[in-house]
Amino acid sequence: MKKENILILKGTIIFTPDSAGFEVRQDSYLVVHNGIISEIYKQLPAEYAGCRIIDHGNRLIIPGFVDLHTHAAQFNQRGLGLDLELLDWLNEYTFKEEAKFTDTGYAAQVYEAFTEELIRQGTTRAVLFATIHKDSSNLLCDILSRRGLGAYVGKVNMDVNCPDFLREDTQQSLRDTEEFFERWSSTSLVNPIITPRFAPTSTGELLAGLGKLAVKYNAPVQSHLSENPGEVKWVAELFPDQSDYHQVYNHYGLFGQTPTLMAHCIYLTQEAIECIKSNQVVTVHCPDSNINLASGIMPVRKLLNAAVQVGLGSDVGAGHSLSMTQAMVKAIQLSKINYVFDHQCDPLTLSEVFYMATKGGGKFFGRVGSFEKGYSFDALVIEDNTEMAQKASPVERLQRYIYALDASNIVARYIAGQEIQSRI
Amino acid sequence: MKKENILILKGTIIFTPDSAGFEVRQDSYLVVHNGIISEIYKQLPAEYAGCRIIDHGNRLIIPGFVDLHTHAAQFNQRGLGLDLELLDWLNEYTFKEEAKFTDTGYAAQVYEAFTEELIRQGTTRAVLFATIHKDSSNLLCDILSRRGLGAYVGKVNMDVNCPDFLREDTQQSLRDTEEFFERWSSTSLVNPIITPRFAPTSTGELLAGLGKLAVKYNAPVQSHLSENPGEVKWVAELFPDQSDYHQVYNHYGLFGQTPTLMAHCIYLTQEAIECIKSNQVVTVHCPDSNINLASGIMPVRKLLNAAVQVGLGSDVGAGHSLSMTQAMVKAIQLSKINYVFDHQCDPLTLSEVFYMATKGGGKFFGRVGSFEKGYSFDALVIEDNTEMAQKASPVERLQRYIYALDASNIVARYIAGQEIQSRI
Repeated sequence: MKKENILILKGTIIFTPDSAGFEVRQDSYLVVHNGIISEIYKQLPAEYAGCRIIDHGNRLIIPGFVDLHTHAAQFNQRGLGLDLELLDWLNEYTFKEEAKFTDTGYAAQVYEAFTEELIRQGTTRAVLFATIHKDSSNLLCDILSRRGLGAYVGKVNMDVNCPDFLREDTQQSLRDTEEFFERWSSTSLVNPIITPRFAPTSTGELLAGLGKLAVKYNAPVQSHLSENPGEVKWVAELFPDQSDYHQVYNHYGLFGQTPTLMAHCIYLTQEAIECIKSNQVVTVHCPDSNINLASGIMPVRKLLNAAVQVGLGSDVGAGHSLSMTQAMVKAIQLSKINYVFDHQCDPLTLSEVFYMATKGGGKFFGRVGSFEKGYSFDALVIEDNTEMAQKASPVERLQRYIYALDASNIVARYIAGQEIQSRI
Repeated sequence: MKKENILILKGTIIFTPDSAGFEVRQDSYLVVHNGIISEIYKQLPAEYAGCRIIDHGNRLIIPGFVDLHTHAAQFNQRGLGLDLELLDWLNEYTFKEEAKFTDTGYAAQVYEAFTEELIRQGTTRAVLFATIHKDSSNLLCDILSRRGLGAYVGKVNMDVNCPDFLREDTQQSLRDTEEFFERWSSTSLVNPIITPRFAPTSTGELLAGLGKLAVKYNAPVQSHLSENPGEVKWVAELFPDQSDYHQVYNHYGLFGQTPTLMAHCIYLTQEAIECIKSNQVVTVHCPDSNINLASGIMPVRKLLNAAVQVGLGSDVGAGHSLSMTQAMVKAIQLSKINYVFDHQCDPLTLSEVFYMATKGGGKFFGRVGSFEKGYSFDALVIEDNTEMAQKASPVERLQRYIYALDASNIVARYIAGQEIQSRI
């Protein structure tokens, strides 16, 4: 191994090999070969003599955050219209905002600001919705690639039950999606994902076509599932042949036939939970969004007990912040509310939500989100110079950062071994 | 009126004369005489010709925030120990941290940082718990006064059911409190408040003595009420002669006999609600704290419907942030959760929580928290240069600031007509 391909960071290293607890390696050396984690050492072996070591003292070194569900195109509307529920919010705010992305000039401005904020907040990998527009979706991929982020990007598909200015011709929608896949499937850090907005804005023909594309490109899939009672009722009316909401996606090969993310999953039948589990669909908890739109609380503990995979999403713009630390806090808070109402549901622990925001979500990207051997070196370095931090344990310092500090405490960011710069 | 005593700001002025909605005065002049609001004009009268006008363009000018409940001494522990519930959290973290305030050097360091963060976040008036220690409580008042904040500060009283290192001798506790009152009762912006920690850490003798001091100094009172089911049960055991938790305070003249704040008020009997209302006790909603300690959700809509006054508190350290904008967001979010479980409870609106965080809470300080004639000029100037903000309505811009922006968007702060500087 050439020395220039070796990266060594020293500091207090914390990560979650599993959700049950933290692995803490104080004053240790994290050795990275070609962007991949090799080993963590308390004493650096002689073979690394002469390699450059970045000594972060007692700073924390943690995995970068993975945001499994957010809408890049809604970045500008975060914090607006949150007195509405889902379907009204879509019509009054979201569709109007997304329509602006026919203009690639506007798209460039929003996507640059979005990407900068993603980096600033310490998100290193994200799964994104763009809009129906192929050109601005390409632009989002370009910007993410240029800044070094890891991402799946979805060109959104909608061909029914939406305003004329956002309704696609079904065949054109499929052709644009395929073109988008041709362009981005073989790139390294930014890749495409099949993205029907949700069942109500999709014809069966569109969903069938997308299912075929998923198979053809062995492509991952993302959408929304069972977010709001009105939405669930509407899907039952729109797809009377399907026994349950999730069966709409499942019928068309968009529910675990390839790796699949489903955001929200609040109102699930037992049958849906079984299907999610057997199809290995990954559910995404978006706490702020679910509460801002008065949708409800995802039954996270129940899903974890059923061995369902749960990741975390910021879901901007219904969520109002890209901060994954605040998403972790909100996930714990909502689980405590569930606990207050039902003492059978233990609150989520700090290590459980940290796992969701790192290795748990990271699985969707491969070996991402942990510091075990063979994982991509995606990392954040956290500084907290207060006297309180000096006296606290490493896990207390991490808890303090997650709850009470913010992006300004992140002093370095790495993605796949490359240092990424925030411009602020 | 001498021109040097006149302050004129121009901008987009927003405030809540009542909780039902915002009063918006675009491109208007806010005229302040000797720190007191005189009038808002669309066209400035000739009499003000030659006065200096601070033109904030389309920036928002809003009342400063009022935090009705927070623990200055717990500033360093925010974000720690939040896997515990109230009584364990007190014993494992809080009492140990508060014990450090025997050291005025430590106190000075924490209270300086706390005050700086209060200013940075745009809080202009706050009602604070210090600790049992007279000297460091004096120090907190000194620091707040020097920085120009408006505050009520409580030297905490505890003489039972707490660790030896924080247990006061009852008579010494009362003498220290009286000395604290002698020193701070006649100052202008920082004043003392009677502060038994809560019923369980108070003997009847202590509460009786504090009740007498409240009458003697016509002093306001603050404490905690009905935060946690275990606490409520404990109070019933400790005070078997009182029919209900609130009656412990009421019996000793600490429940509305002088202006009184009671934080939390989650588990209230109908009798307690009636007494709160008839005694004009002000309840304080502390959303983050209540969820972090898995205490429960305050029935805010029910209390408002019963014509009970409700203010907002950050309640650091069980709350993890001094941001009153985030307290507003959390109050709306918790009300939406209540709504999801009970559609009879309408969610809180933006104007309702803004009113709580300004004029509603401000009443405790007198004519504070609004821009009506005769009110103290406590204000924040908010900048948001994004294109989105330029196109949004003033109330949308305010909503965007409250949800999605942060303290870095505050470009000026005024308290009682004086501009206050954040050091960051």
